[in-house]
Amino acid sequence: MVKALAPDVRPIEELDKRTQRLVKLAMKARKKAYAPYSKYLVGAVIVDTRGKIHAGCNVENANYAGTTCAEQAAVVKMVSRGAREIRRVVLVTSSDEPVFPCGFCRQIIIEFGPHAEVTTVNRRMTQFAQSTMDELLPAQFSKKQLHS
Amino acid sequence: MVKALAPDVRPIEELDKRTQRLVKLAMKARKKAYAPYSKYLVGAVIVDTRGKIHAGCNVENANYAGTTCAEQAAVVKMVSRGAREIRRVVLVTSSDEPVFPCGFCRQIIIEFGPHAEVTTVNRRMTQFAQSTMDELLPAQFSKKQLHS
Amino acid sequence: MVKALAPDVRPIEELDKRTQRLVKLAMKARKKAYAPYSKYLVGAVIVDTRGKIHAGCNVENANYAGTTCAEQAAVVKMVSRGAREIRRVVLVTSSDEPVFPCGFCRQIIIEFGPHAEVTTVNRRMTQFAQSTMDELLPAQFSKKQLHS
Amino acid sequence: MVKALAPDVRPIEELDKRTQRLVKLAMKARKKAYAPYSKYLVGAVIVDTRGKIHAGCNVENANYAGTTCAEQAAVVKMVSRGAREIRRVVLVTSSDEPVFPCGFCRQIIIEFGPHAEVTTVNRRMTQFAQSTMDELLPAQFSKKQLHS
Repeated sequence: MVKALAPDVRPIEELDKRTQRLVKLAMKARKKAYAPYSKYLVGAVIVDTRGKIHAGCNVENANYAGTTCAEQAAVVKMVSRGAREIRRVVLVTSSDEPVFPCGFCRQIIIEFGPHAEVTTVNRRMTQFAQSTMDELLPAQFSKKQLHS
Repeated sequence: MVKALAPDVRPIEELDKRTQRLVKLAMKARKKAYAPYSKYLVGAVIVDTRGKIHAGCNVENANYAGTTCAEQAAVVKMVSRGAREIRRVVLVTSSDEPVFPCGFCRQIIIEFGPHAEVTTVNRRMTQFAQSTMDELLPAQFSKKQLHS
Repeated sequence: MVKALAPDVRPIEELDKRTQRLVKLAMKARKKAYAPYSKYLVGAVIVDTRGKIHAGCNVENANYAGTTCAEQAAVVKMVSRGAREIRRVVLVTSSDEPVFPCGFCRQIIIEFGPHAEVTTVNRRMTQFAQSTMDELLPAQFSKKQLHS
Repeated sequence: MVKALAPDVRPIEELDKRTQRLVKLAMKARKKAYAPYSKYLVGAVIVDTRGKIHAGCNVENANYAGTTCAEQAAVVKMVSRGAREIRRVVLVTSSDEPVFPCGFCRQIIIEFGPHAEVTTVNRRMTQFAQSTMDELLPAQFSKKQLHS
């Protein structure tokens, strides 16, 4: 067994230009978030393996359980456009530090991107952290396990 | 107390032209559905109160619980575009007869359309049924109840 | 089409003794609720068709979507004990007036009790309202629709 | 960054006696599972920090999204009894090899046990694997992140 990963947090200036552009799209999506209960706005951008970009925001519900996370929203949008493979996820949350997707989102992402790269940026867009789905959700439960 | 509603099922020819056009969009969305576990494909179209159309399909997950319904997908797409009010939902499912949204979808719809109209069409697009969210989810639990 | 139901709210004194006992059990379950995010505590009691009682409370999660409702908790407890049929659901919420289950709970209840009776009581236990799953979730989506 | 963990699979005989007893309880819970859609039965046992045991099984729904996982069922049962801290999770699934919880379950477990130990056993009870929530869900999203 390896030790749990502790992702490096780095200043946003170190992020490459292409990813900075994706961060801006995620921040734009975040502005549409519907989060009257948590006040925790999230924007997410997915890049599929054909290079197409799909943006989503979180959408809450009065029953709480009916909340759709931003990453899930972006995945669903990707699928509705006929794409099936995620290369990258870029995220802007409402936390002071870069925060990775919750376990629910990780499960939904790996259905289409078991090895996807994840970049997350804090609210003030001053810091980022990066990881992969292999690291963020090791020993994944997916179709293969369900059918074995 | 009133008796539970039993929606009338009618031949598709009786559906007005505008709604028939929405049904075609829902059927087109349904073709993108990712439903390898249930094989139950659903397409949904939402018309918001500004007349804009938002289409979605169901997106399943190997853990089953991670499934996003088609109606939820369309709601989330609407919200990500800045709209907040649902006027109509149009649905094409995989059942032989017209089928209304599950309880999860009804809860997610009423967050943005407590009185929305719902039209549902069977797989072969030969029949439809219509109702409203007031009828499909009476005595709704929404923000007002949460905060009272 | 019928009009949406408007359940009658009545004073708790009009509730029969047996149901009042179930309300006390639901209130007891409510005290265990874990709701640090919404502060909305709910307790639920299910009576199965063999007369056995199963109590549950809501359990929230920092991601909101991971919330388990009290009714769902009671259903799950019932199933884990080998029972499969719900006769009654009795609910105490945190609202000033009696409130019926959200759409998610209605969907989870009908899997095991499509015709179950539902009694709901307000936080101060001064009022109640009653209905049935036929009324609360008309035109249900269940196994039959999935497989047709 | 470290490489994704690859949990060691070992023969069941190497499991200590106390854990073997928990496995038997998980297998007993698994027999109550309601999984008519996936046919994938799961039983889970939680040991809280006071040493109390809570068992659960998965409970599916015709809408798929309404599925409660076995681990979630056990967590909810624990909470309804007043406990709030998870020490261990023991799991028996329907796979040929030991399989760890899905991302949804990991998220629900860490709300009450961010460092809990997890033991999982295959269907035929011939093999097991062990890990911790720190490893299975690194860089967790929990209350602290929500409120920062």
